[in-house]
Amino acid sequence: MSEKFARRMGTVHRSFIREILKVTAHSEIISFAGGLPNPELFPVAAMDTASHEVFSKIGSSALQYSTTEGDAGLRAIISQRYAKRGLTVDPDSILVTTGSQQVLDICAKVFLDKGDKVVIESPGYLGAIQAFSLFEPEFVTVSLEDDGPNLEELEAAFKAGAKCFYAVPNFQNPSGISYSLEKRQAVAALTDKYGVLFVEDDPYGELRFMGEDLPTVYSFCKKPGILCGSFSKIAAPGFRIGWVVTEKTIYDKLVIAKQASDLHTSTVAQSILRRYLETNDIESHVELIKERYGRQREYMVEMIQKYFPSDVKITKPEGGMFLWATMPEGFSSMDLFDMAIEHKVAFVPGRPFYVDGSGENTFRLNFSNSDETRIKEGIKRLGQCIDSFLK
Amino acid sequence: MSEKFARRMGTVHRSFIREILKVTAHSEIISFAGGLPNPELFPVAAMDTASHEVFSKIGSSALQYSTTEGDAGLRAIISQRYAKRGLTVDPDSILVTTGSQQVLDICAKVFLDKGDKVVIESPGYLGAIQAFSLFEPEFVTVSLEDDGPNLEELEAAFKAGAKCFYAVPNFQNPSGISYSLEKRQAVAALTDKYGVLFVEDDPYGELRFMGEDLPTVYSFCKKPGILCGSFSKIAAPGFRIGWVVTEKTIYDKLVIAKQASDLHTSTVAQSILRRYLETNDIESHVELIKERYGRQREYMVEMIQKYFPSDVKITKPEGGMFLWATMPEGFSSMDLFDMAIEHKVAFVPGRPFYVDGSGENTFRLNFSNSDETRIKEGIKRLGQCIDSFLK
Repeated sequence: MSEKFARRMGTVHRSFIREILKVTAHSEIISFAGGLPNPELFPVAAMDTASHEVFSKIGSSALQYSTTEGDAGLRAIISQRYAKRGLTVDPDSILVTTGSQQVLDICAKVFLDKGDKVVIESPGYLGAIQAFSLFEPEFVTVSLEDDGPNLEELEAAFKAGAKCFYAVPNFQNPSGISYSLEKRQAVAALTDKYGVLFVEDDPYGELRFMGEDLPTVYSFCKKPGILCGSFSKIAAPGFRIGWVVTEKTIYDKLVIAKQASDLHTSTVAQSILRRYLETNDIESHVELIKERYGRQREYMVEMIQKYFPSDVKITKPEGGMFLWATMPEGFSSMDLFDMAIEHKVAFVPGRPFYVDGSGENTFRLNFSNSDETRIKEGIKRLGQCIDSFLK
Repeated sequence: MSEKFARRMGTVHRSFIREILKVTAHSEIISFAGGLPNPELFPVAAMDTASHEVFSKIGSSALQYSTTEGDAGLRAIISQRYAKRGLTVDPDSILVTTGSQQVLDICAKVFLDKGDKVVIESPGYLGAIQAFSLFEPEFVTVSLEDDGPNLEELEAAFKAGAKCFYAVPNFQNPSGISYSLEKRQAVAALTDKYGVLFVEDDPYGELRFMGEDLPTVYSFCKKPGILCGSFSKIAAPGFRIGWVVTEKTIYDKLVIAKQASDLHTSTVAQSILRRYLETNDIESHVELIKERYGRQREYMVEMIQKYFPSDVKITKPEGGMFLWATMPEGFSSMDLFDMAIEHKVAFVPGRPFYVDGSGENTFRLNFSNSDETRIKEGIKRLGQCIDSFLK
């Protein structure tokens, strides 16, 4: 059959991370590999109540086909929550999507012709690389520094004729890095100057457990951009409910692409989530998550400082779910991964996050889904592996 | 912004049907336009119980990320239900999708290069035309006769180098036509002979209320094909849960495309639906639906014979949700639509279902979502419109 497949399928492969998750899921492995929120914090009882109220009060309309744009009440809540963060967003400019992953797919459908230049952060978010790859763009990478992208590289990429810049300015996956206020403004100014579409992915923005909240890059852009959000990290990922905010011309095209993709996002899932949001204090719930993740991130850094050799450098994220480790040049985290699995501890090697094949000596650690006991034991095991590995 | 959009966006538009649904949803219009299952038959109370059991027994894992392939228990149930219909399907060859619409999107991603020839029925399913169009194939149409496609046209299309043939052999949307046993075997033989991928969409196959069940075309194909199914018409569409069955090489590519599209289908929706299927007799429920739809289809045909001019021809489907009307040549159902809306009755004009722009004199009527009272009044109103329209 292989001669039948479209050309685009030659360039993409199964997500390395999702394959790793299969290796690490069903065993005694302490895994820092996944990007899983901590399930202990899922509001299970509240969802039970919400779903009962949906089926008993709303009944059959929660089970019927619904509009592509998404539940009007849910979009109103998303709008109200942006308002609390200082951003004015008309509910009619919000399109509910099947997870924020779907935003990447429909953006690629709507904007990318083969060979179009897409600028991404290096390292960059794997899900975006996957989604965009199917539309055969040319990726151009910009290095991430501690406070955001290298602006010289960014401007050079824009000058060379980029169509869009995809970025995760808050607690980026995989690096944990956040853009400074200055870099946010500078990025917005550059996208405006060169007419490059800015696609801002913000699944972690509400999970800041230290430092000060910063405005979205989107809010600084004068030309139309795209802002993606998600309930996966603040409520639960199993709903597969995200959204995109943009201006009308782009919005209409995204609706067409979404119709063709899955008609609309699950009415059942939207109805239950909406009811939960209407009858519970999500903001207090987010505070709980931040408190827990903040403590776990503190503890993971502490354990790393205790158990890792000092020539392994790490980022110290002020929010989100991940931190990023860099070993000395010449060491491969792929090889380390094999050794770590033998010692029943897992992480994600960094190379898949670099479209240029670099990053061999880097790896990603997730701190949201492990308690202190497992963090201590896992980091200790991993430290021992690295110790013998670097010798 | 328009200069930014990908070339493919020039060829597709918002679904005409979904736009019509907006016109007809919030008014006193009697609508035969939608493709909605009858919500009176949704098992609301059973879903209430199922969702409570999911949240109280399964808890947080129903809210977490899950595998791209889909819930193993749900796939086992799909496999068991195929076995009852005489088809052996390994659960590992089933991929759960976000509605069967998503199968069309990921099949297009995996198989279609620009300009590839895709054979479709004429009239054809709009959702497929939309999904495929985004990948810029060349559509080749084959006429639907009362017992299936015109085989000479089909072979000519295959000879000219088609990549795939997309078809809805049971109670097709929009025409209500089903393939005879002989044509099923002939279509399978032709796809095998010319190495054309057969994509069989079967959302209505279980809704046969008269005549005898026939095997899928897929089951007659010797070369690997694709079979799509859905819970939308037998349980509820609001879950957005469909599936695809295929062989391993194709399966692996479809998984890659689905990962990039939305990571996986809603865990919440899959868990509730699975629980419902495990604790309820879906087969009895399907019998209920068939009994009701059969009665409504009988009554609609009866009312059409009473109220429509005799030179309007209709199909008499043995299952599904739609029948198809053809006025004499030279009359436009688009014009009739405007008149009908004034008289507060709606249908879907046929032209959008023809990629070649023909079918001006045809239209689709849905019988699943109207009770006898509304069918009588609606068909009477529509008959009066047609009467004065044809004069």
